[in-house]
Amino acid sequence: MSFFPAALETLVDRFASLPGIGRKSAQRLAFHVLSLPEGEARAFADAILDAKKNVHCCRICQNLTEGEICSVCASQTRDKSTICVVSEPRDVMSIERGREYNGVYHVLHGVLSPMSHVGPDDIRIKELLTRVADSEVEEVIMATNPDTEGEATAMYISRLLKPFGVKTTRLAYGIPVGSNLEFTDDATLNRAIEGRTEI
Amino acid sequence: MSFFPAALETLVDRFASLPGIGRKSAQRLAFHVLSLPEGEARAFADAILDAKKNVHCCRICQNLTEGEICSVCASQTRDKSTICVVSEPRDVMSIERGREYNGVYHVLHGVLSPMSHVGPDDIRIKELLTRVADSEVEEVIMATNPDTEGEATAMYISRLLKPFGVKTTRLAYGIPVGSNLEFTDDATLNRAIEGRTEI
Repeated sequence: MSFFPAALETLVDRFASLPGIGRKSAQRLAFHVLSLPEGEARAFADAILDAKKNVHCCRICQNLTEGEICSVCASQTRDKSTICVVSEPRDVMSIERGREYNGVYHVLHGVLSPMSHVGPDDIRIKELLTRVADSEVEEVIMATNPDTEGEATAMYISRLLKPFGVKTTRLAYGIPVGSNLEFTDDATLNRAIEGRTEI
Repeated sequence: MSFFPAALETLVDRFASLPGIGRKSAQRLAFHVLSLPEGEARAFADAILDAKKNVHCCRICQNLTEGEICSVCASQTRDKSTICVVSEPRDVMSIERGREYNGVYHVLHGVLSPMSHVGPDDIRIKELLTRVADSEVEEVIMATNPDTEGEATAMYISRLLKPFGVKTTRLAYGIPVGSNLEFTDDATLNRAIEGRTEI
């Protein structure tokens, strides 16, 4: 692959190292960057450095923030007695987009995964326990993904929370709004029947 | 979309401005960059700036290079009397990968496209004509893509080259090697029959 100038090859390599970007896409992206005006290319490089330099974890909830604590934790109107535990910062965004939840969050930055050698000490469980121990938390909502690892993490943490006497809940399983029974998988449909509610 | 810190949002915006990268992919890429070690992130930013600063067009063939002329034009073993005209630098790589062609190239950096307001002065046609006029060129192979714009560009240039008395050729059309007649489209199959060769 030495048909391109070295500096261009290096840039292609960098793009190709990103998740979900193959060699061909990386080339297209590198060519696009080359075609940008000087200032735009510099702004791109600066955006990488700025994000890396200024973004870190909120001291309280571990979500990404530029200040010491994030806007949700700093807010006076959020209900601090309910903590929603998610695995990634992007999950916070998904829930915030719904504009219904008014509690605070705790970002684990991962899920327990013995296959990938991720144990309890590798994700922010300790910080959650400290938080539950130190402040007046009434409910912890486990909002990890409904897959094997997300489930296991939710179970593990709910067991650790038992001694603190807080209410631990899990997101409801069921058929997605706007979907179709015909195309809903068996496991989901079974859970929807089990969790049926009176109307 | 103000759930992320500003520096992270900026980085997401930058990634989302790249071709073929949607909002969700841009978020994933930005999170990946955040998770990189400091040095890696800096190397990424530097790769962008370096490529932008050091890569420019070869004085002769307009392909991308870091020197004044590219390695193909500088090579003593390449046949300078045959010029292969392509629309993009990546096409040079595609042909080089075949390891059969031993002539030189000319990169147009685009194709004629009235719909996108790309006229003859917007791509490197003038440079090709100067080159054909000044050096001993025997054959110009038009290797633009086999689509409407690529065809039109090849036709346009071949007409301009007529007065110079050089042989102008076009890549062969036909069924791709390893493909299947059943799934070959009609136009390609017709061209393959027209261009049949004796065995």
